[in-house]
Amino acid sequence: MTQKIRTIILGASGYTGAELMRLLTLHPHVEITGLSAERHAGQTVAEVFPHLGIYNLPVMQQIDTLDFARADLVFCALPHGTTQKVIAGLPPHVRVVDLSADFRLRDPKQYAQWYGHEHQALALQRDAVMGITEIYRAQVKSARLVANPGCYPTASSLPLIPLLREKLIEQDGIIIDAKSGISGAGRMPKQNLMFTESANGMSAYSIGNHRHTPEIEQNLADAAGHAVHVTFTPHLIPMSRGIFTTIYARLRGGKTVDQVRAALRATYDAEPFVHILPDGRLPATHHVAGSNHAHIAVVPGAVHGQVILLSVLDNLVKGASGQAVQNMNVMYGFDETLALGQAPLFP
Amino acid sequence: MTQKIRTIILGASGYTGAELMRLLTLHPHVEITGLSAERHAGQTVAEVFPHLGIYNLPVMQQIDTLDFARADLVFCALPHGTTQKVIAGLPPHVRVVDLSADFRLRDPKQYAQWYGHEHQALALQRDAVMGITEIYRAQVKSARLVANPGCYPTASSLPLIPLLREKLIEQDGIIIDAKSGISGAGRMPKQNLMFTESANGMSAYSIGNHRHTPEIEQNLADAAGHAVHVTFTPHLIPMSRGIFTTIYARLRGGKTVDQVRAALRATYDAEPFVHILPDGRLPATHHVAGSNHAHIAVVPGAVHGQVILLSVLDNLVKGASGQAVQNMNVMYGFDETLALGQAPLFP
Amino acid sequence: MTQKIRTIILGASGYTGAELMRLLTLHPHVEITGLSAERHAGQTVAEVFPHLGIYNLPVMQQIDTLDFARADLVFCALPHGTTQKVIAGLPPHVRVVDLSADFRLRDPKQYAQWYGHEHQALALQRDAVMGITEIYRAQVKSARLVANPGCYPTASSLPLIPLLREKLIEQDGIIIDAKSGISGAGRMPKQNLMFTESANGMSAYSIGNHRHTPEIEQNLADAAGHAVHVTFTPHLIPMSRGIFTTIYARLRGGKTVDQVRAALRATYDAEPFVHILPDGRLPATHHVAGSNHAHIAVVPGAVHGQVILLSVLDNLVKGASGQAVQNMNVMYGFDETLALGQAPLFP
Amino acid sequence: MTQKIRTIILGASGYTGAELMRLLTLHPHVEITGLSAERHAGQTVAEVFPHLGIYNLPVMQQIDTLDFARADLVFCALPHGTTQKVIAGLPPHVRVVDLSADFRLRDPKQYAQWYGHEHQALALQRDAVMGITEIYRAQVKSARLVANPGCYPTASSLPLIPLLREKLIEQDGIIIDAKSGISGAGRMPKQNLMFTESANGMSAYSIGNHRHTPEIEQNLADAAGHAVHVTFTPHLIPMSRGIFTTIYARLRGGKTVDQVRAALRATYDAEPFVHILPDGRLPATHHVAGSNHAHIAVVPGAVHGQVILLSVLDNLVKGASGQAVQNMNVMYGFDETLALGQAPLFP
Repeated sequence: MTQKIRTIILGASGYTGAELMRLLTLHPHVEITGLSAERHAGQTVAEVFPHLGIYNLPVMQQIDTLDFARADLVFCALPHGTTQKVIAGLPPHVRVVDLSADFRLRDPKQYAQWYGHEHQALALQRDAVMGITEIYRAQVKSARLVANPGCYPTASSLPLIPLLREKLIEQDGIIIDAKSGISGAGRMPKQNLMFTESANGMSAYSIGNHRHTPEIEQNLADAAGHAVHVTFTPHLIPMSRGIFTTIYARLRGGKTVDQVRAALRATYDAEPFVHILPDGRLPATHHVAGSNHAHIAVVPGAVHGQVILLSVLDNLVKGASGQAVQNMNVMYGFDETLALGQAPLFP
Repeated sequence: MTQKIRTIILGASGYTGAELMRLLTLHPHVEITGLSAERHAGQTVAEVFPHLGIYNLPVMQQIDTLDFARADLVFCALPHGTTQKVIAGLPPHVRVVDLSADFRLRDPKQYAQWYGHEHQALALQRDAVMGITEIYRAQVKSARLVANPGCYPTASSLPLIPLLREKLIEQDGIIIDAKSGISGAGRMPKQNLMFTESANGMSAYSIGNHRHTPEIEQNLADAAGHAVHVTFTPHLIPMSRGIFTTIYARLRGGKTVDQVRAALRATYDAEPFVHILPDGRLPATHHVAGSNHAHIAVVPGAVHGQVILLSVLDNLVKGASGQAVQNMNVMYGFDETLALGQAPLFP
Repeated sequence: MTQKIRTIILGASGYTGAELMRLLTLHPHVEITGLSAERHAGQTVAEVFPHLGIYNLPVMQQIDTLDFARADLVFCALPHGTTQKVIAGLPPHVRVVDLSADFRLRDPKQYAQWYGHEHQALALQRDAVMGITEIYRAQVKSARLVANPGCYPTASSLPLIPLLREKLIEQDGIIIDAKSGISGAGRMPKQNLMFTESANGMSAYSIGNHRHTPEIEQNLADAAGHAVHVTFTPHLIPMSRGIFTTIYARLRGGKTVDQVRAALRATYDAEPFVHILPDGRLPATHHVAGSNHAHIAVVPGAVHGQVILLSVLDNLVKGASGQAVQNMNVMYGFDETLALGQAPLFP
Repeated sequence: MTQKIRTIILGASGYTGAELMRLLTLHPHVEITGLSAERHAGQTVAEVFPHLGIYNLPVMQQIDTLDFARADLVFCALPHGTTQKVIAGLPPHVRVVDLSADFRLRDPKQYAQWYGHEHQALALQRDAVMGITEIYRAQVKSARLVANPGCYPTASSLPLIPLLREKLIEQDGIIIDAKSGISGAGRMPKQNLMFTESANGMSAYSIGNHRHTPEIEQNLADAAGHAVHVTFTPHLIPMSRGIFTTIYARLRGGKTVDQVRAALRATYDAEPFVHILPDGRLPATHHVAGSNHAHIAVVPGAVHGQVILLSVLDNLVKGASGQAVQNMNVMYGFDETLALGQAPLFP
């Protein structure tokens, strides 16, 4: 077999970093040659993530000690905001899949507004490609820098984009009532993420100011051809993994729920990871946990002209590291399902 | 002190039955004189609910062996559908708080449509009073039969009724995205309620056909003065207790979110159990668990003219047995908070 | 009614502080006149513990701004180690129930060995009384300073003390396999306490070096009349509250499991909070959650001469704040169950 | 590549059946040609296990409609007791991995005593091979019928067998304090397995009469060369998957904890699925969930001559279906890790 892709994971001590390692250990064409984790530099993977201790993986290092000259690909799973400078400093031959939010928003003003500071790598941002694989596959293929999308934007955009493209639903008044598992908030200890504070109950958070809102709206605007404004309401659910979105939209005049379902089927029936559920079956996050699959259901609303879309995915896989590997597979012309063949883990 | 209210609980082996016992053991004016549980007849409370085994409570009996002549009050926590005949057969001096759905819908046609059979006690149904205490207190006071409301209807109606009454929001297009803990489905073993099937993930269910829909619409129609149709989407969340509703409504022309908040404050600020959260605080089911309290928050929507209402309560307390005790307190002229003074249990 | 006990809670922003507030709001003879929380000074209870926001409680203050001259009683729920100096500085008229470990170990050498520094208030330590209420009630009654025991020591000592006192079991070879809910580790965010790290799985920790070991051994030595060494193995279980101990002991020659059960019954049958389960019933933490009750079961071991003792309690109630209130009731001659009458919360 | 093994799964609607499907979809040399599920006959896998709906798997059938003549291998995941007759009726060319308990106990008297009826297939039982792969690999290789071990016996036997073989520990007085996730009890709805009854708390069960006890003792007797009697105490933990055993044993005279650790390392260091943790690291079920790995730690006890062994595995994988696949790989001379290469799923 040909030479393996030499791959570095930056931010390997977070959950998306761990997921990249979990998945890539199964990839026949990838070799992990470097891992960065500033606070854990010098530690083994076994110390940071005991579940991955049995694999032969590099020791964690500080970023500036890594040898990028001998790398082909970097997965960047650094915190939002710290990424721009790091990626700007990489040698030009290195391709990048960035799991942070740093290169997702094309409009620098919007970036500055939502993230509170000017973007530090505008030139790179212009070349970045949004990485919802099923939607932007052609651009991903040749991209040097893929901005891997957020979990909420992936879950929301997959059902809505085909419907806006084909003008089946109104672009106004879309409501996304979203529910996330707790791993979406990362591994840094915070009081609200403690077991005692989050188990056995649920809450809403960041209503009206969640940073995934402009990312969703950018994706939908691409599809609609106009600016789209959504109501996005995130909730925190006592589960480790999973995004569940319940989306309320209005059919355009004369359009039907059957047409909606047909459009989604036409878009996704050949896709290996996006599945439109048969009429009558409702999604559950349990059915995709640990896998790169997304399930979408279409249900008529109780009032005339309303359609309800429900989608589920694993925020750490299709919502982050799984889609990152899927994008890598596209970038290198591999079978898109390589390293992503594991079935969901249930129960 | 005067003689205690002699109280019988029918359906004492379910969760709402257990909650009635839990609360009433603290009530100074109530004596539990009988418990029914058909399949558990002959068993002690300690056998059926070990957490209540330390209390001196009657042995479970079959309904037809209970002496209703010596009872003042019956809490009826039987399964939906079986209740009508039982209540119709009670002596006329016995007052009833019915926790089933049997007497909630005033329109017999609607009852037949949603429950699949004709109502068996129409005369009683006409006299039944809806038991959302804060809204129907005057009628509850003198009622013989209180139809204690469902958990979803209580959580949905508390925020919406004042707004519809005062014509602050449009009566069309209301969306109730509702989330329930698993105890809402009762204690009868079913596969989807198993730990292995429901823990660590979430799902939607009964979209478009949940039986609480007409009950909510009846409450809202009372307030609006017209028929109201809502979109009601229930979800199952891996938590033992709790209802969380996220309600999307549109302000009527010229009305503001501040007016909405002020109307809710005016309605509930003197109430012991319904609390409007200060601006900026979002509710969590953890903060009401085990208590009879409901928390409501008001948030402006992302699009012009939209308001988001969020409410939480414990489905087994304010959503069932706690409100039943509150109604009993009203019926007998007791302090409305008797036996309901326990603070929420957190963590 | 007579004047209320003016009570200050130090360390009110932790879980045991919150539990003290939850319970004391129901106490007819107690008034909370001060709350301390260094990092939260200036915040209301509603901000720190939203579930207690509806009560009329003082604002959190720094300790040195509190007026101890006008207080009768202090509950001290400060972190281990910081307590000694604070208590040493209190006016002599103030009685103290200390929930930290600072005054539990009578032997200063042992304290220094397990806590890594010399004890700072040796005079006070000599007068401190161990507060397992059922065992040390007479001393608690007249104590100025009660050292409220830890959750593991309470759960372990309640079943073992009567058996060692009456020489029914060997004092050697006792094994305590203990399991704790996550609130036992406090409210300070740490990675291993995050939902994502602790939900849906379990682990062992601190085997051989948990600081509750000498406390258990001191209690058992009191009962046995000799030094006792135990094997104590703590585990972390994905539940918010609860201690479960599985204790393996050997019967002394000629002694029987029936005698063990009888001795426990004789010790506890008149107690309001400690319950020996009937033969055949095994304990569950669910059955005591939120309450001050402890359940104990006795089971014959599989090998000759072995007896297995199982005990459960809520670590934040009988294992901490509930027992602290129980001790206060004893200290002031109140009915010992005041403010502790709430039934367990199940499910 | 050569012809695939034609494989039938009996009892495909239970959790171990689902796990077999999950794993075997990744096996390059296996084709699933039949699935049985009596109550679900006629249903698709998508209906019974939506998480597996995307795979091209046979429809569920009743056993007597399956064509065993064209099968090479049967995985039998039927309930205990029903299996004997089914396996006895299979054509002789079909090899069998039986996940039930039916063929695990070699002594028919013991079988009758623990299972309450005479064994129905004694001839087969004599040829059955115990399937703890690492211990009985040579026998498994040529077996026609492998009795796949239970989850508790695997978790208990892996650490104990090498120590008994090498006479490092006493064979008397072994205590196995075991903790299981809830999936170990299967998918049939029962009250104690409901989320509401088992989440957020823990309990003990079947002390002294759990059917895995004789199976453990048989394994240990094989290793010790004498009958061994253990104290086995199972607990139910609120986690979907996972077995955690805490084993207390006594070193034989002059033996040390270091020798114990060395013996386990010598036995397992070349094994792909059994890992002896480095000194100082304690196991957690999270670190093996979803995988075929087992972790074992060795800790000195608090009293002289005591050693504590801790082991974790996923009860549905190494404790059931994963080990079944591992045994199949041995039986057919495949690489033993085929279809078992997935890393644990954390968080």
